[in-house]
Amino acid sequence: MQNKVTTKNIVKVIGADVSEQSDLLVVEEPLEIRLGYGKTTNRLQKSLAVTMRTPGNDEELAVGFLYSENLISHKDDVINVKPCVDKKTGELLENVVRVELSPTLVVDIKKLSRNFYTTSSCGVCGKTSLELVEQTCSLEIPKSFTVSQELIKSLPEKLNSDQLIFGRTGGLHATAIFNKTGDLEMVREDVGRHNAFDKVVGHLFLKEELPLFYKIALVSGRTSFELLQKAAMAGLPILCSIGAPSSLAVKLAEEFNITLIGFLSQNNFNIYTYPERVIL
Amino acid sequence: MQNKVTTKNIVKVIGADVSEQSDLLVVEEPLEIRLGYGKTTNRLQKSLAVTMRTPGNDEELAVGFLYSENLISHKDDVINVKPCVDKKTGELLENVVRVELSPTLVVDIKKLSRNFYTTSSCGVCGKTSLELVEQTCSLEIPKSFTVSQELIKSLPEKLNSDQLIFGRTGGLHATAIFNKTGDLEMVREDVGRHNAFDKVVGHLFLKEELPLFYKIALVSGRTSFELLQKAAMAGLPILCSIGAPSSLAVKLAEEFNITLIGFLSQNNFNIYTYPERVIL
Repeated sequence: MQNKVTTKNIVKVIGADVSEQSDLLVVEEPLEIRLGYGKTTNRLQKSLAVTMRTPGNDEELAVGFLYSENLISHKDDVINVKPCVDKKTGELLENVVRVELSPTLVVDIKKLSRNFYTTSSCGVCGKTSLELVEQTCSLEIPKSFTVSQELIKSLPEKLNSDQLIFGRTGGLHATAIFNKTGDLEMVREDVGRHNAFDKVVGHLFLKEELPLFYKIALVSGRTSFELLQKAAMAGLPILCSIGAPSSLAVKLAEEFNITLIGFLSQNNFNIYTYPERVIL
Repeated sequence: MQNKVTTKNIVKVIGADVSEQSDLLVVEEPLEIRLGYGKTTNRLQKSLAVTMRTPGNDEELAVGFLYSENLISHKDDVINVKPCVDKKTGELLENVVRVELSPTLVVDIKKLSRNFYTTSSCGVCGKTSLELVEQTCSLEIPKSFTVSQELIKSLPEKLNSDQLIFGRTGGLHATAIFNKTGDLEMVREDVGRHNAFDKVVGHLFLKEELPLFYKIALVSGRTSFELLQKAAMAGLPILCSIGAPSSLAVKLAEEFNITLIGFLSQNNFNIYTYPERVIL
């Protein structure tokens, strides 16, 4: 298994002091996601996407990505997911993961291409996908779920205590899921913020715990269009971030009935949409 | 012209105080990059990529993206670049930019597809592109350029004074270019770090000021594979960032002879590769 961190000898300048030290770096490696699909008599393999990710939980990442892109919706849609093996050498290909889809699943090749196309540049979807999200995300996120402002303020501290790699390298994004009483249920970390989110979604997809109608997510960075798309697909009522949201993130939160919180710290936060879920 | 920031009424929680306020959001909108290419008798248009960006300097973004992807190399390769117009209504399509390439430019359609393919998910290139960068980036970045550690430490302050939108919204990434005496020459900001870098490269490409053999770049966030790829294509000898580099960023910096600096502040910084360019 590949490591998530690696060491490097660096020159460290602290004020007037210059020294050579060993430092930790977060590992970034490409992951290719391949699909196996179609009936057994007409079996196809398609290379769907390459993403730069931190190794670990690659199966979750692949499945979470497919779920977020609306290519799969139930656990039964996936027969198995595992790293590829080089047929000639028998060597494990640690940067290639293959998702074997159910032969009964209808996969729209055109949709694949379109998704593939529109995901260029950011793991996000452009204009086409904005429409696509609106068309495909049919979840009605309930409005009844409420939490206290004290609970919201308590979340960053809980993430920090668990976010080990980030603390050591400063190079990772994290996505955490909390239950309605504010207990940390899971965290995933990655160099790519969308990957950390996909890993969370993939894990919960495989455990058949989607949608997350009564959960809260916290992400370490800023919130963009793509994270809101993924949150909407996961059915999350409350999405918090340490950083700022973009205009399109707020727009999507409004459309999908998600309470979007930004600049969250131990004492302060901003609510951009649906403040009625937070008891103030 | 579209705005770079927009306002939104939010609920602000500061300690025990709860108030409604107007807040600034950075604008995120999709930009589709289209290519016009081929001989006049066999003219083609191809939709190359969709990226989520902050409006402004879209022509620079498109051209910088094409240069970074090694599809164009000289100003003459571009006949013009401008927003598209809806043929039926005459309306300006602010989220679509078209780059008209020279009919004499040989465009490898397969390379386009491959680039397109490998850029999925992150604006970066995966395994294939790692090889592609190695094959196509033939710039020999000179080793002779050196700067003082005081000059390096002075850069973040100069970026802050100019980085207006970031200061107001906290939602943007910036890329700045400094000359060898540490003067700020230009800054571009965007929700996507790769877009901010592409806008800088596109601007300098159109001014025919590439490669940047005697310049220093500073980026506001972390450094990943994709930024190092773009820095290598631009011929930058020194790339500084406020955040952490990834393992692959360090690897590319080593391969392309780039001095990579991270965690840069007014007093401290780390040098990950080629420290000999900094007089300590």
